[in-house]
This record gives sequence, structure tokens and C-alpha cells, in this order.
Amino acid sequence: MAEFAVSPRNQVKRVPARASYDQATIYQIIDQALVCHVGFVQDGLPSVIPANHARLDDVLLLHGAQASRLMQHVGAGHEVCVAITLVDGLVLARSVAHHSLNFRSVVLFGRGAIVDEEQEKLRALKVLTEHILPGRWDEVREPSQSELKATAVVSIPIDSASAKVRCGPPADDEEDYQLPIWAGVLPLQQGALEPVDEPGLSAGIPVPDSVLNYNR
Amino acid sequence: MAEFAVSPRNQVKRVPARASYDQATIYQIIDQALVCHVGFVQDGLPSVIPANHARLDDVLLLHGAQASRLMQHVGAGHEVCVAITLVDGLVLARSVAHHSLNFRSVVLFGRGAIVDEEQEKLRALKVLTEHILPGRWDEVREPSQSELKATAVVSIPIDSASAKVRCGPPADDEEDYQLPIWAGVLPLQQGALEPVDEPGLSAGIPVPDSVLNYNR
Repeated sequence: MAEFAVSPRNQVKRVPARASYDQATIYQIIDQALVCHVGFVQDGLPSVIPANHARLDDVLLLHGAQASRLMQHVGAGHEVCVAITLVDGLVLARSVAHHSLNFRSVVLFGRGAIVDEEQEKLRALKVLTEHILPGRWDEVREPSQSELKATAVVSIPIDSASAKVRCGPPADDEEDYQLPIWAGVLPLQQGALEPVDEPGLSAGIPVPDSVLNYNR
Repeated sequence: MAEFAVSPRNQVKRVPARASYDQATIYQIIDQALVCHVGFVQDGLPSVIPANHARLDDVLLLHGAQASRLMQHVGAGHEVCVAITLVDGLVLARSVAHHSLNFRSVVLFGRGAIVDEEQEKLRALKVLTEHILPGRWDEVREPSQSELKATAVVSIPIDSASAKVRCGPPADDEEDYQLPIWAGVLPLQQGALEPVDEPGLSAGIPVPDSVLNYNR
């Protein structure tokens, strides 16, 4: 089982029992999330910007406009830290102190590079599109030359990463189990509602299976 | 209508039409989200850590263990950047280039301080608990002296902030509207499933209304 090496940079310090360095666990969280939060340093100050992402093997891909500050900074190879969090439920204990969330999170580290070569860029855009909705790439118009030029793609080889996962019921203090207080978990799930046609949609075009079968 | 001043630090550079500096818009996003992503700089390197948060007036509150690196660093008054993102849907255009997400995000800046005074700390923990689930504070056992001591709370006055909001249908290029391709939005919503009793729950304790009525 492939694991990321534990280093001072990626080591989970709080509640190490919830930590995982297992690549499969980490990649599954990255793949399920729709957005990531990219942290970087400019003029000594921290910045965090949300972004769409996708994973291609051991590389995290981001895309944006060429003029985007995020793309320019990350593409220039500065160190970034990317955090991804999925919230799975409210953990409701008998005491305030043991309230928590069930979650799965990943923090990863790396240095980006611009993806410039046309075929590589197309492949990255395909992976990014399929990350949003599997099957979508083959349904839609591919990028034109000018669209390709206007889009920046950066790849961030995942040098180091860790996951932190909390699941299951609340854990109360022994003496609190007798209290007449409800305790448990309220599971949360991000689900899809009914698809909404674009108002200019030509008559007779059905919602494709890719959308109907969406299940993240 | 209160607004945050626009500065180089909080100005939204990409797609300024989606930017908002309106306090009410920004605070609503902060209040709806269950987690935030806190960015900070250590040894010149970026770190991003997910955290529970809550807002009390113009202050963002975080809590954690006293030994937590995040609490110690933020409590020491270093600059932080906090990003909060709500994903509202998949934006599915006729062309790859116009695919997007509907989202509401906030990026805020400030410097934290430890909340040490007992009554202030209790009030902050109440706000943090009520943020997870309104009504919960009055249902559960309040923190003991030793729990209070073991918990760190930091307050971050929100010095500067901006929101970015994308909503509505995809916008395709004029010539693409004739393509026989479905386009629209797949709305996403984080909903609650059935509450799960803690396995050690005493018989006859019903799920409280706070949980049954959860609606973020």
C-alpha cells in the first residue's frame, strides 16, 4: 500500500489517530471534492483562494484564466499548500466540549508548473471537465485554439500529503452517558436537485445520462 | 449598507462583476458554512488548515485544543487569510470552456488573538456550538473548568473581506447556442439524512427539535 512519507511538513499533530498517509485514502478525498483551497505566500502574507481541481495520477491540476493571479503565482513554481475538506455530519455529544464534525480532509504540498504543450493541456482540460461530471467531455464542444490559449493550466506534483478523517458517533466522558440528553450524529450529504435547462436550450434536447446519473 | 473598503489585499481581480464587498452578503456566507480554511505563513511557507468557525459581530471565532498549532499560531497574532466556499451547482455549458461551478465564496483577512477571559470564552463557545446547530447549547452540558482550560479560542477581527458569487445558467458563445447539446445547471445542496442515535443512548430520549429542524 503506497504511503506518503511522514515529515514535519505533512505530519498531523492533533489527534494523530485520525491521520492517514495512505495514498488511496488521500486520492479518494481529492477526487470526491469539487473545490480545493489553494494557499500561497505573497510578500510574506498568506493568501487562500478556492479553485476547481482534478487529479491526474500523482499530480493536482488547476485551471483558470491566463491573467489569474492564482495561475500566475502557482505556475511560477512557488510552494503551495492545498486543503480539501468534505463534511460528512454533525457530531452531537452530551457535552459542549465533545461536539465536532465528521469530516474527511486532505492537506497537500507541492510546487506548480504551467502546462503549455497543447496535447498535455487538452488532456488536463479533459480530466478537469470529467472531474466535474464524468462523461461530459464527449458531450460538448472541445476547446478551440483561442480558448486553449486563453486558459491557463497548472500541474502540481503532490510532493507530500496527509489526510485526517473523523467518523462515527460522539465520544462523551464516562459520567455523561447517564445524562438525559440526546446524542448522535446528523449525517450530511451533498445531493443533486432537479437539473435546470439553460433558458435558451433548443426544444427536444433531453437531459443526458451523465447529469441524470450524477452521484458524487 | 455597510461595505468593506476595497484594497489591494481584498480586491477580486478575476471577473470583478462577481465580486461583492457588502458586509451582509459576506456575513451570510460565513454563517452558512460549516468549515473554513485558514491560511497562514510559517517559516516562509504556506499552510492551510480546515477548521470550524463561527462569527460574532465583526469577529471570526475559531476553537481547538490548546496544543493545536493552528490555535497557537493564530492566537499569536500573525496575519491569516481565511477562505470559505459554498458550492451551489454544476454549470454545464455547450462548450468545455464555459463549464463552471455556481458558488459563493468569501476570503477574509485579519490577525487573531487568544480569548482568555472566562466569560468571553464561554460566550465564544456558545456561539461556536450554536453555529453547528442552533439551539444545541441549551440542550447539553456546559463546559467544566478543566474543559475550558483545555480549549483554546481565538478571535479574528475581520479587517478586510470580499465575496465572490457565481449563480445562474451557463453563458455560451453565441454560435454555440445552435448546437444539439444539453446545457443547464445541476443544483447541489447539502442536506441532512436521518439522525443516528449514539449507540450508548439511554432508552426513551427522543431526537430533539434542533436536530429534526436542521436546515442550513
